[in-house]
Amino acid sequence: MSNRYAIILAAGQGTRMKSKLYKVLHPVCGKPMVQHVIDQVKSLDINEIVTIVGHGAEKVKDQLGEDSQYALQAEQLGTAHAVQQAEQMLADKEGVTIVVCGDTPLIKAETMEALFKHHEETSAKATILTARAEDPTGYGRIVRNAEGFVEKIVEHKDANEQERSINEINTGTYCFDNKMLFEAIQNVSNDNVQGEYYLPDVIEILKNQGEIVSAYVTDSFAETLGVNDRVALAEAERTMKKRINEYHMRNGVSIIDPDNTYIGPDVKVGQDTVIFPGTTLSGSTVIGSDCQIGPNTEISSCEIGNNTVIRQSAAFDSKIGSEVNIGPFAHIRPESDIYDEVKIGNFVEIKKAVFGKGSKASHLSYIGDAEVGADVNIGCGSITVNYDGKNKFLTKIEDGVFIGCNSNLVAPVKIGKGAYVAAGSTITEDVPGEALALARARQVNKEDYVGKMNVKK
Amino acid sequence: MSNRYAIILAAGQGTRMKSKLYKVLHPVCGKPMVQHVIDQVKSLDINEIVTIVGHGAEKVKDQLGEDSQYALQAEQLGTAHAVQQAEQMLADKEGVTIVVCGDTPLIKAETMEALFKHHEETSAKATILTARAEDPTGYGRIVRNAEGFVEKIVEHKDANEQERSINEINTGTYCFDNKMLFEAIQNVSNDNVQGEYYLPDVIEILKNQGEIVSAYVTDSFAETLGVNDRVALAEAERTMKKRINEYHMRNGVSIIDPDNTYIGPDVKVGQDTVIFPGTTLSGSTVIGSDCQIGPNTEISSCEIGNNTVIRQSAAFDSKIGSEVNIGPFAHIRPESDIYDEVKIGNFVEIKKAVFGKGSKASHLSYIGDAEVGADVNIGCGSITVNYDGKNKFLTKIEDGVFIGCNSNLVAPVKIGKGAYVAAGSTITEDVPGEALALARARQVNKEDYVGKMNVKK
Amino acid sequence: MSNRYAIILAAGQGTRMKSKLYKVLHPVCGKPMVQHVIDQVKSLDINEIVTIVGHGAEKVKDQLGEDSQYALQAEQLGTAHAVQQAEQMLADKEGVTIVVCGDTPLIKAETMEALFKHHEETSAKATILTARAEDPTGYGRIVRNAEGFVEKIVEHKDANEQERSINEINTGTYCFDNKMLFEAIQNVSNDNVQGEYYLPDVIEILKNQGEIVSAYVTDSFAETLGVNDRVALAEAERTMKKRINEYHMRNGVSIIDPDNTYIGPDVKVGQDTVIFPGTTLSGSTVIGSDCQIGPNTEISSCEIGNNTVIRQSAAFDSKIGSEVNIGPFAHIRPESDIYDEVKIGNFVEIKKAVFGKGSKASHLSYIGDAEVGADVNIGCGSITVNYDGKNKFLTKIEDGVFIGCNSNLVAPVKIGKGAYVAAGSTITEDVPGEALALARARQVNKEDYVGKMNVKK
Repeated sequence: MSNRYAIILAAGQGTRMKSKLYKVLHPVCGKPMVQHVIDQVKSLDINEIVTIVGHGAEKVKDQLGEDSQYALQAEQLGTAHAVQQAEQMLADKEGVTIVVCGDTPLIKAETMEALFKHHEETSAKATILTARAEDPTGYGRIVRNAEGFVEKIVEHKDANEQERSINEINTGTYCFDNKMLFEAIQNVSNDNVQGEYYLPDVIEILKNQGEIVSAYVTDSFAETLGVNDRVALAEAERTMKKRINEYHMRNGVSIIDPDNTYIGPDVKVGQDTVIFPGTTLSGSTVIGSDCQIGPNTEISSCEIGNNTVIRQSAAFDSKIGSEVNIGPFAHIRPESDIYDEVKIGNFVEIKKAVFGKGSKASHLSYIGDAEVGADVNIGCGSITVNYDGKNKFLTKIEDGVFIGCNSNLVAPVKIGKGAYVAAGSTITEDVPGEALALARARQVNKEDYVGKMNVKK
Repeated sequence: MSNRYAIILAAGQGTRMKSKLYKVLHPVCGKPMVQHVIDQVKSLDINEIVTIVGHGAEKVKDQLGEDSQYALQAEQLGTAHAVQQAEQMLADKEGVTIVVCGDTPLIKAETMEALFKHHEETSAKATILTARAEDPTGYGRIVRNAEGFVEKIVEHKDANEQERSINEINTGTYCFDNKMLFEAIQNVSNDNVQGEYYLPDVIEILKNQGEIVSAYVTDSFAETLGVNDRVALAEAERTMKKRINEYHMRNGVSIIDPDNTYIGPDVKVGQDTVIFPGTTLSGSTVIGSDCQIGPNTEISSCEIGNNTVIRQSAAFDSKIGSEVNIGPFAHIRPESDIYDEVKIGNFVEIKKAVFGKGSKASHLSYIGDAEVGADVNIGCGSITVNYDGKNKFLTKIEDGVFIGCNSNLVAPVKIGKGAYVAAGSTITEDVPGEALALARARQVNKEDYVGKMNVKK
Repeated sequence: MSNRYAIILAAGQGTRMKSKLYKVLHPVCGKPMVQHVIDQVKSLDINEIVTIVGHGAEKVKDQLGEDSQYALQAEQLGTAHAVQQAEQMLADKEGVTIVVCGDTPLIKAETMEALFKHHEETSAKATILTARAEDPTGYGRIVRNAEGFVEKIVEHKDANEQERSINEINTGTYCFDNKMLFEAIQNVSNDNVQGEYYLPDVIEILKNQGEIVSAYVTDSFAETLGVNDRVALAEAERTMKKRINEYHMRNGVSIIDPDNTYIGPDVKVGQDTVIFPGTTLSGSTVIGSDCQIGPNTEISSCEIGNNTVIRQSAAFDSKIGSEVNIGPFAHIRPESDIYDEVKIGNFVEIKKAVFGKGSKASHLSYIGDAEVGADVNIGCGSITVNYDGKNKFLTKIEDGVFIGCNSNLVAPVKIGKGAYVAAGSTITEDVPGEALALARARQVNKEDYVGKMNVKK
């Protein structure tokens, strides 16, 4: 195998996106388009990756980090000009270079690998990735010669009737002999209506030099979609979603409605887990086996065990154990650590709290900045008062504690092992283990009083 | 340009809808079908609009109000008979009349304008809006003569094999020379199986008079869909949804899943706002730029600023500022006015309340009938007790107040500027500015008591 | 009509499902695949149904119960071998036997009835259910003879080019003369690569005996889908969902987005009820007319009256009356009985409670193990304290009671008719009718105190 290089074109503005956000940073299934491309390219055996940045250069670099080297295209003078910015880094190297656009988020590593292989197996100095389009209108057509190699690329506007009937189109991805690419690119002119330097002109230059140009036809036209506006962005999202969801289904995950389930590209899901409609799983979320997730649930970057049920809830950046039951209508905020067999019921918020094995907060509670032991029962409506308007404080609830309903635990406070807090109490001082804590007024019944009150019964 | 008139047919019953609701009042994307038609017609330069009403006449009039004049078709004797009801209003006027069905909610103004233009450019006395159907079964076929004008319309059941192979169909929308329409219509007979007076018969009458009838082919068959049952209603909803969502995407709004996002026809959304799946935006909602809305959020007739985030929540008939953070699982009820930089967290209900700049109600609160100043912190579980079983009262919370958790503010009550209400207090009297208000019992710890209680720890 | 028998093949493992759950038990629209098949078969006039069980035999029997007899296929040696297991039960009976796979959940009774009818009208001893496939790749092709009867079935791998161009395919469902089936099956050999006994070989055997074999072409290829992996399972779900939703729409139910509405096969919905997107109705749910359900609502096995509104909520195994208003964000747990004109508002949980006519719990409450009378008002944040850590107790609230906000009703406790509980009270003793119950501390305002506190205002 020859040395391999990749150039990612990521400098364009993307005017038709109508966005302050730089085009290649628009996300597809939660991941920026250019990151999708780089992730696929990285999985090939590539010696060097150079991303051409321009508009939003710093933000693209922030996104990709050390996944790539960068060359700056200060002015956007066309795709050939963009490639030329990598000259200093790559021009003198032997090998094959793939050029890919950063706005083609659906392209797969295996397709690029096939393109490389096809290129290496022929004597071609350039190989075009092509596809068969049902409606080729607008695309450059591939005119092949008698030997089946490429004669030329004809742009739609320049094509005659016969050429327009060709449905093999240029996808904009190419492999080149690296040295020849950088030599040829110096001869590309901007003598055209837009005054730009176009990369396809390299093909013509190589042909004029008598070189062979080949074309490799991928059978997935959808994969080569270039995103230029948000309608195409949504189309890319749909295709990527289908791809991701089919991957999980083939792995043994039941997805009730794959059209209405949104799973990020880095999410992992175990076998026999069922995902109900209206559910979004994003970030680095890992879900075990035999779980039930959804409907209408959002989970981001959580690590979840086996046999856990999460319904109509939202959970972020937390660890959730096995045999846990969450929801409906619960909210797990970041930095929570929920142990096995916990129950978090409806209208309960957990924030930055450890929640010990088998403990329960079944209804209408807020547990924040807290360490809750095992086998604790947090009564309905009970609250950790973690904030005094100035600072946040810790609440510590030891194993086996029972917190009565509608209680306030005013932090910093510690409820000792096995203690019992009576319903309706506001607890401001530590409660020793095994103690009963009360803070409430005695009940008075004023008989036959309602008639005297100026209120409706 | 000639004078232009429009007749909207909106008198039919719609038996196949199986509904108490009159057919043309069934909503598509939240707006009654006939209102869609009228809104499109109104945007043309039309001298008079006459809606033919019959079944549910009063309700149709209530819906359309002054957008139209009305003629009552007391008995439903066919489409020609329906048009005839406008005779007194229109028959003696020079000009061109478009006849549109009130159950074709997808028809666009630009298509009707093109029909008018085509009609005016020919010497035709009637012009039929036609379309090419993939499967023309059931539709009337357009038979053209050598000059390309219309020879006749053949109903499906009357068509011979050759005629059935014609895929140009009658959409049921027409332009007529107004005077000729009303003259011809007097000659339409009901000598047919159903005993009805059919509008297409006018075409035959004009032809027999030696007049030219033209046809204008729209390229959008979908647009001409007539809704006769709820399966077609859902189909119309799908097409309208796609149209609306593509409009917003082209304007710079990111819609993660346009198939699963429901935006009303009158909603406005600013650039770089992202709408997550399962979200419904309806009524007169206006959303600024750079917002994040959804997933699974319902917003009706709210005015929302920029950079605001609303997640897994519901909001109705309220004003919500910029940099506001709402949800997940919050409920903003009508007549609320939420200023900039407010946070409304999970399980919080706001009803008919002003909520001042930078104030927070982060968890499990109900703030109703209240005026909340700036920089107020409403503690978790705190409640405005606005109802005594008979009347509703106001709560006033001035700037910089801190309300402790699980407090009750029994209205009418005023909490003065900078005051502090201790957690767990029931406040029944006004609190002066800068005062600390308490209403709670002292905590008692009964040590080693739990063993004596007949309860589980 | 001859005697009719049915054999359901439900013994296969379903390796490609990658599941601990036995293949035919995977649900489609909430009902196991094999139950769909049995339900359709049962609705025909069938003398005996025999289900062939193998993998997961006990669980399949548990699912189907008395809907079928069972024959055990201890080893999975092919479809002919599977059918042979019914020999003892059926072999000596006169009549016609249909053989259906338990993994074809979409097959309709009317299609099987048509197959039976077609079989009975010809002199054929076997009739194959066939369909026209757009892409027949992989399917067995039906080769017909000059009289239009079946000459043979050719498996895809054995087909020549001409045979591969045939688009009439074998769906795997058959009718047989019962006695001939069991005779022929004894002659099926396993002399093939997999070493299995294949049911289609019976066709060849009958042909060799000089019998006539017919084929009945269903026009719904989709209906014959066999589910072998979870991608096909999701596809079956989509088709079944469409079928169910169109049924309801034709019955007069408005479904705003049928692609995003999940209704179980046994659910009933009344006319003019509107179902908003993201809604799941499952189990034995029955909904009356003129209701509004959703968006984003889950209802399982509830019985709901007319004119009821349920929004963004979840309800399970309960009875809900007419003119009830629930949600958004409410949770009705099992065994609740909610009478007419009740309001259950946001962040309210009802569990195993009777809720009398016209009563209200509008916000942030938990009412569990309770009997609530008519015209009761449960104030915001009020809670039935039904659990002491050991046992659950009943709360009884009589007609016309007013419970103030953030109150605790510590069960067992009874609040008498027309009583009034003051806001913020923890009620531990019974309250007589018409009494005012209070249990709270008096408010103290410490003026100018906040400056002295070490907290932020």
